Amino acid sequence: MPPTAKRVSKPASQRRTEILDAAHSLFITKGIQATSVEDILTEVGIAKGTLYYHFSSKDDILRSLVERTTARVSAQAQAVADSPMPAIPKFLAVMAAARAEDSEIALAAELHTTGHDEFHLMSILGTIRALTPILVGVVEEGIAEGSFTTDHPREVIEIILTAAGMLLDTGIFIGEEDQIPRRTAGLIHAAEVLLGTQPGALAQAMEGVEGIEGMQGMEGSA
Amino acid sequence: MPPTAKRVSKPASQRRTEILDAAHSLFITKGIQATSVEDILTEVGIAKGTLYYHFSSKDDILRSLVERTTARVSAQAQAVADSPMPAIPKFLAVMAAARAEDSEIALAAELHTTGHDEFHLMSILGTIRALTPILVGVVEEGIAEGSFTTDHPREVIEIILTAAGMLLDTGIFIGEEDQIPRRTAGLIHAAEVLLGTQPGALAQAMEGVEGIEGMQGMEGSA
Repeated sequence: MPPTAKRVSKPASQRRTEILDAAHSLFITKGIQATSVEDILTEVGIAKGTLYYHFSSKDDILRSLVERTTARVSAQAQAVADSPMPAIPKFLAVMAAARAEDSEIALAAELHTTGHDEFHLMSILGTIRALTPILVGVVEEGIAEGSFTTDHPREVIEIILTAAGMLLDTGIFIGEEDQIPRRTAGLIHAAEVLLGTQPGALAQAMEGVEGIEGMQGMEGSA
Repeated sequence: MPPTAKRVSKPASQRRTEILDAAHSLFITKGIQATSVEDILTEVGIAKGTLYYHFSSKDDILRSLVERTTARVSAQAQAVADSPMPAIPKFLAVMAAARAEDSEIALAAELHTTGHDEFHLMSILGTIRALTPILVGVVEEGIAEGSFTTDHPREVIEIILTAAGMLLDTGIFIGEEDQIPRRTAGLIHAAEVLLGTQPGALAQAMEGVEGIEGMQGMEGSA
């Protein structure tokens, strides 16, 4: 390669990651509206054609950021689910693994204030869809080991994930932050009843695991 | 009044209703994007100033349509709750009263296809907020009469309403229409367990009342 080459050629997946990282960072510092495609090009140091090879628009970048978070959360939750652990702490640990990172929560807040609620909703739904089969697997392990009792594992998980994803999201129920402790306790109680655990089994196990309060930002993703 | 008066002066609330009716009708026939403020003026037969006296923008009209539906659903549900009826059929009848009308479901679909998901979400949250106190009242009646048993009426109602509002909305879980019967059965089961009814009590009562399947379009509103 001649020493005069100004642009370094990188693998496509690495470029894609760089663009997403730069866009995410600009979106939460400068704001989604205020960030132009040019700002992203400058930050990454690439030509317009390279960006448009990967993404068709700013909305396409937002959608990809949401999908990336869902994939991250899903992989993290699956890793926990694959580890050897009794079902009750595993259930809580999977929920905790689904927690959004601070930068993802910041992006979710920015999505809301700029009227991009469709991406916030996409993020909540993506998390519900990704976590449902993983948690159903944990519940089936729990049924086999005798700590859970339910004839409707999938329906129960969908209800708990949907209710938690919405009710604990302060970007959805705006101005109801003070309701979070009450709603969290209600969800733990509901999960115990619906999963047929011993009364208080999940609440007690939470003292050991970074637990259901992790659901609070689970969709915060982006 | 001189016979040459071209514009009839009407009470403000009546004008407001006429504008909302015309806008709703145009939005679902012509489409939200394709409907201009001028189209609404022509339909109602008013001057621009009259419309802007009531609404600041097309988005303001959309927001008002959502609020109108929530108010209608809430009043209808409250009327059912105020009627003398045992708690189990009353619970189902309140849920059924919360069902959206066809024109409201059509507007919800149009909101989604035009990227106005924030109004769809606003509609779901408005319905949850409006129905929670009404259904908590019904649950308290049920506890008093011995048909329900729960220490967490409010939390349980929030969970059921949120899960039903999302999981049964085919404008939210797009492409999952075939999951509705399974999810409806799961929600009925969950409501029985969480409200502490006799097993099958809600499912059996549904045969007499236009019941929980009414939840399907409950948020469809606008």
